[in-house]
Amino acid sequence: MTDTTLNTRVLLASRPHGEPTAENFTIETAPVPQPADGEVLLRTIYLSLDPYMRGRMNDAKSYAAPVEVGAVMEGGTVAEVVESRDPSLVPGDIVLCGLGWQTHGVLPANQVRKLDPSRAPISTAVGVLGMPGFTAYAGLLEIGRPQPGETVVVAAAAGPVGSAVGQIARIKGARAVGIAGGPEKVAFLRELGFDEALDHRSPTFKDDLKAVVPDGIDVYFENVGGHVWDAVLPRLNTYARVPVCGLVAHYNETELPAGPDRTSRLMQSILTKSITVRGFIQNEFVKTHYKDFQRDAAAWIADGSLQYKEDVVEGIENAPEAFFGLLTGKNFGKLLVKVGDDPTA
Amino acid sequence: MTDTTLNTRVLLASRPHGEPTAENFTIETAPVPQPADGEVLLRTIYLSLDPYMRGRMNDAKSYAAPVEVGAVMEGGTVAEVVESRDPSLVPGDIVLCGLGWQTHGVLPANQVRKLDPSRAPISTAVGVLGMPGFTAYAGLLEIGRPQPGETVVVAAAAGPVGSAVGQIARIKGARAVGIAGGPEKVAFLRELGFDEALDHRSPTFKDDLKAVVPDGIDVYFENVGGHVWDAVLPRLNTYARVPVCGLVAHYNETELPAGPDRTSRLMQSILTKSITVRGFIQNEFVKTHYKDFQRDAAAWIADGSLQYKEDVVEGIENAPEAFFGLLTGKNFGKLLVKVGDDPTA
Repeated sequence: MTDTTLNTRVLLASRPHGEPTAENFTIETAPVPQPADGEVLLRTIYLSLDPYMRGRMNDAKSYAAPVEVGAVMEGGTVAEVVESRDPSLVPGDIVLCGLGWQTHGVLPANQVRKLDPSRAPISTAVGVLGMPGFTAYAGLLEIGRPQPGETVVVAAAAGPVGSAVGQIARIKGARAVGIAGGPEKVAFLRELGFDEALDHRSPTFKDDLKAVVPDGIDVYFENVGGHVWDAVLPRLNTYARVPVCGLVAHYNETELPAGPDRTSRLMQSILTKSITVRGFIQNEFVKTHYKDFQRDAAAWIADGSLQYKEDVVEGIENAPEAFFGLLTGKNFGKLLVKVGDDPTA
Repeated sequence: MTDTTLNTRVLLASRPHGEPTAENFTIETAPVPQPADGEVLLRTIYLSLDPYMRGRMNDAKSYAAPVEVGAVMEGGTVAEVVESRDPSLVPGDIVLCGLGWQTHGVLPANQVRKLDPSRAPISTAVGVLGMPGFTAYAGLLEIGRPQPGETVVVAAAAGPVGSAVGQIARIKGARAVGIAGGPEKVAFLRELGFDEALDHRSPTFKDDLKAVVPDGIDVYFENVGGHVWDAVLPRLNTYARVPVCGLVAHYNETELPAGPDRTSRLMQSILTKSITVRGFIQNEFVKTHYKDFQRDAAAWIADGSLQYKEDVVEGIENAPEAFFGLLTGKNFGKLLVKVGDDPTA
């Protein structure tokens, strides 16, 4: 499927203004690099596409440094060891690593984590058993802290984070309300066992939401922003918790709204209802929660209480187009680019 | 000072639109009520005036029910028992209670708390040893959680909550930056030992703030909102904590700013810097923290590390005017109305 002597890679060609376009990327080939002592040569199998990547395209201060113009786009990957110059790995090993948007790469052996393909499909290492799953787990349980009988609402609920949030909420005895775009995704949420599923594109969305949360909202897991947040805010209960891990509805905005005091409506709600709004990046919780997550998620997948859906696009050259779709909700499930053959499939 | 047979009381005459005016209040006299079995007749000594009262004048959903039009304005008071029909209290006892804006009142004996005048000046029961002090203590320590060497910023810092916040922050080893309106209040903050004191009325306030927080802000204790918040937000550090107990700059606003997505700037900051914003009312922490507060605050007052300032207005008939000043920062220290003689002074 891939030329073993050439590395095909996607570079950031220019910084987008608003919605990114094909012109912001360059696809080129280069010789496959050679590993030095302590390094491994890797062949990408799956590249994970995630909303946070939009932020990395900007030259703005955020929780991570931006991708430099002319550099390979960053991203989590599942890869196969092709050549190893480190005793800890041998060719054929499957690893989790951060090769970015390219077919091949060299990394120090201590920067990759070996996967056990007998444990779970290897693609889940960048999905339900990886960063998105852990984001859901840590944010919901550590910040959201849903109690039995409480109402948990999550948007982008058909995506890898949102679908895990809703299912974990139910595992913990809470009521899960999922919000997604379009009837297919809404039907999928019902299959997953969400107590209620709503289409945010419906003209009656605001009223629909009100109708399904008669006791208000105790936890809103925020990964979207925009008009969904506007509809949720008035429904939050006293002592509601709002973990914030993303605002994908705003990622392509070029300017924030003008004018003073633009934050006062939110602050008024926070004040009068003793609401907690807490931003987080999953890294913060790795030391304290990652082991528990791996144990719990594996058990829940095994007993069927945590299901997942993947949306697989073939070929590294289709990564930009797939990424544009991710930012507008076109993907349906965890978005992966299948970059090379999966020998475990 | 007060007629012992007549009760002078301040009623809410109408709901204000924006800034309250004298027309929103009626001052009238009525016969002093008689206590029934289990009740006590009380004579108000000090009435506490607090910003939260502005919210009670509105007919809006908040953390407490509004004052009805035609009813006595609510408020915390220190009072003397005039007549007791309950074995737990005798005439002459000094109590903390909620008589509201009136010279006399009857309450069930179990709704008043006896004070020990030998322990501290009785007025402190509605100030540094009462609700405002406890708001500072619980919000700062439980939500703000300042660590030694961190930077804590508080606005309305010459007021009863803010002055306690800054001093407790220093007691806990943090750096305290106080913000107040006008040079006198700023000088007072320096007397209290704040590491830095700023005048938010200065045309260079935004830059002044930036200059005194070279390492950013770890805790911002929010009780004001408005342009102070606008200046603070960009300076908040990753993992900053923002306890929100008031937004006095907005209490007289008749409308929140229009337009969609008005909350996104704040949410972007919360997301990218893993900030915690948490509204609270001190009641939430009474069970868990009130005993510790009483013990700690008394010790800190005794050793001089927690100082307080009172702004005392004489006469119940002056309560409305004093209250208008409170909403625009005219008071200097904890605002009290001395309604009747203080037999302990």
